[in-house]
Amino acid sequence: MTEPLFDRLCLIGAGLIGGSIARRNREGHALAREVIVTANSQATRDRVRELGFADRVEDDIAAAVRDADCVILCVPVGVYAQVMAKIAPHLKPGAILTDVGSTKGSVIRDLTPLLPAGVHLVPAHPMAGTEYSGPDSGFPTLFEGRYVIVTPTEGTDPAAVEKVRELWRRCGSMIESMDPVTHDKVVAIVSHLPHLIAFTICGTADDLSEETRESVLKFAASGFRDFTRIAGSDVNMWRDVFLNNREAVLEMLARFTEDAQAFGRAIRWGEAGFIEDRIKRGRKIRHSLIERKQA
Amino acid sequence: MTEPLFDRLCLIGAGLIGGSIARRNREGHALAREVIVTANSQATRDRVRELGFADRVEDDIAAAVRDADCVILCVPVGVYAQVMAKIAPHLKPGAILTDVGSTKGSVIRDLTPLLPAGVHLVPAHPMAGTEYSGPDSGFPTLFEGRYVIVTPTEGTDPAAVEKVRELWRRCGSMIESMDPVTHDKVVAIVSHLPHLIAFTICGTADDLSEETRESVLKFAASGFRDFTRIAGSDVNMWRDVFLNNREAVLEMLARFTEDAQAFGRAIRWGEAGFIEDRIKRGRKIRHSLIERKQA
Ligand SMILES: NC(=O)c1ccc[n+]([C@@H]2O[C@H](COP(=O)([O-])OP(=O)(O)OC[C@H]3O[C@@H](n4cnc5c(N)ncnc54)[C@H](OP(=O)(O)O)[C@@H]3O)[C@@H](O)[C@H]2O)c1
Ligand SMILES: NC(=O)c1ccc[n+]([C@@H]2O[C@H](COP(=O)([O-])OP(=O)(O)OC[C@H]3O[C@@H](n4cnc5c(N)ncnc54)[C@H](OP(=O)(O)O)[C@@H]3O)[C@@H](O)[C@H]2O)c1
Repeated sequence: MTEPLFDRLCLIGAGLIGGSIARRNREGHALAREVIVTANSQATRDRVRELGFADRVEDDIAAAVRDADCVILCVPVGVYAQVMAKIAPHLKPGAILTDVGSTKGSVIRDLTPLLPAGVHLVPAHPMAGTEYSGPDSGFPTLFEGRYVIVTPTEGTDPAAVEKVRELWRRCGSMIESMDPVTHDKVVAIVSHLPHLIAFTICGTADDLSEETRESVLKFAASGFRDFTRIAGSDVNMWRDVFLNNREAVLEMLARFTEDAQAFGRAIRWGEAGFIEDRIKRGRKIRHSLIERKQA
Repeated sequence: MTEPLFDRLCLIGAGLIGGSIARRNREGHALAREVIVTANSQATRDRVRELGFADRVEDDIAAAVRDADCVILCVPVGVYAQVMAKIAPHLKPGAILTDVGSTKGSVIRDLTPLLPAGVHLVPAHPMAGTEYSGPDSGFPTLFEGRYVIVTPTEGTDPAAVEKVRELWRRCGSMIESMDPVTHDKVVAIVSHLPHLIAFTICGTADDLSEETRESVLKFAASGFRDFTRIAGSDVNMWRDVFLNNREAVLEMLARFTEDAQAFGRAIRWGEAGFIEDRIKRGRKIRHSLIERKQA
């Protein structure tokens, strides 16, 4: 049997991501000898008790982190600062503080000021998810075969970084390192902007005249269907992502808007060559993805 | 055994759509006693002969249509006018001329001026497709359970319209009627704009700095993956769709761009309520689609 990586692992937040990490440990992947879970509401904590995927559920967040060797924030990135204010005084010296947030610059901004001496901060982001959320939505194989991006800051203890990498290896993931600025730009274009677009186009359709909207729902071809699949995601999480990756999302939106306007202009003026070029570039990226087995 | 609907059915174009109609007949769905196929290039015509899904392959387009009771244009909408110029003098009196083009206003614009007296024009659009094209890509079940929108013009012989509806019923489709203007708006938002966006965002990603682009390909999360699936489609077909549904696509692009800009502005100014509202609307449309079993 593999030795558990941590003695006590504390998960703050028991939704899709936190619930999946806890279930991974339950299935014998030796993340920790004991997994302690807490969440914001009594309802969620009670549900976690019912589901039984944690060894211990704590109503008090200070008690939850007190003896933990590793604490993972699994909450929307917008509440990191307030959660940190509550836990910082109770973190054990030598403990590792890590997270799963979809943005990394804001996470470092919000956690670093209150970080106690001797606690190791190792931000991370598992590139895995579904459109579901809450304590019932997690499952132990969520992270298998998916990338986890670790964004350690300079001077972080290499042993702590290695432990976080090993945690994700035991979850079945491939691990990459990146600086937080690059991370935020990459996720802005591969994930945040596509979600912004999907949310937007649903609203655009919803604003059409009654008659057209009825037909839109009826004839939603595959194009629109794929967009709405993305648009099914959690409100709080996505609001926080947009607000906490502002610079990168706005940069990518501006670039995209310029490009879409140029496409529109080419349609208006009948510039067939320009349109063909755009379509061909789309196919080219598509083919690169297929070669990389990502599509 | 069902009586064949037509004696001689001529398909101009033997790609995804034409090839699927021909194969549907081969599988015993009684579209016609004889299916005659032609295409632009010698290579495609030879390939159709090899594949054997047509009863007769004609190199000469005039010969192909000459004795047909029904002719279906299965070519990109940008070549309708030139194809019509070639076939109009050879269409049999009483014949039905129909099509499968993704735009309907442009089709009526391009076909009506040369329509011989006594030939019945019944434009139609099967809302079915894949990202593949060419003579090898078709299959007989492509249209099963999918909508076909028929856009007859005023004064069209009801018997001719009914025959086209029956043809698509035999292909397994559900049939709806719509005026061409509404059709063009609906497909602009459910299909053409999503494709424009998908083609564009691939280009936007491709223009990023070398380093970011590498990571984009590596970490393409599901959001981006769905977009590139759409972006895999045929160049000529899509160029023609954009150029021939110009007004509706530009209108939908303008509406969408305004909405995306408003979303960006809310991010810039931290307007959480606005962002939440947009996300909720996306989820609402998503749920309507699920209730309609379209998602
Ligand atoms: N879902 C994805 O696709 C995905 C992918 C990668 C990364 N992420 C990141 O993972 C994190 C969690 O996402 P998720 O999908 O697991 O969300 P989720 O299913 O909505 O779960 C969020 C959890 O955080 C808890 N929480 C919220 N505010 C809290 C507070 N102030 N104190 C303590 N607990 C609090 C919630 O408790 P209650 O239930 O009591 O409110 C809930 O248990 C986010 O930062 C997100 O960006 C998500
Ligand atoms: N694919 C979809 O998702 C989809 C869905 C609904 C409707 N449609 C519509 O269906 C039509 C056909 O699309 P498709 O996907 O079947 O395209 P495709 O697979 O590319 O096939 C197009 C066919 O048209 C032929 N063709 C092109 N120009 C011609 C000309 N001047 N004269 C005679 N034949 C010509 C081509 O012959 P060669 O091979 O010799 O060039 C080819 O056989 C388009 O109007 C499209 O808008 C497509």
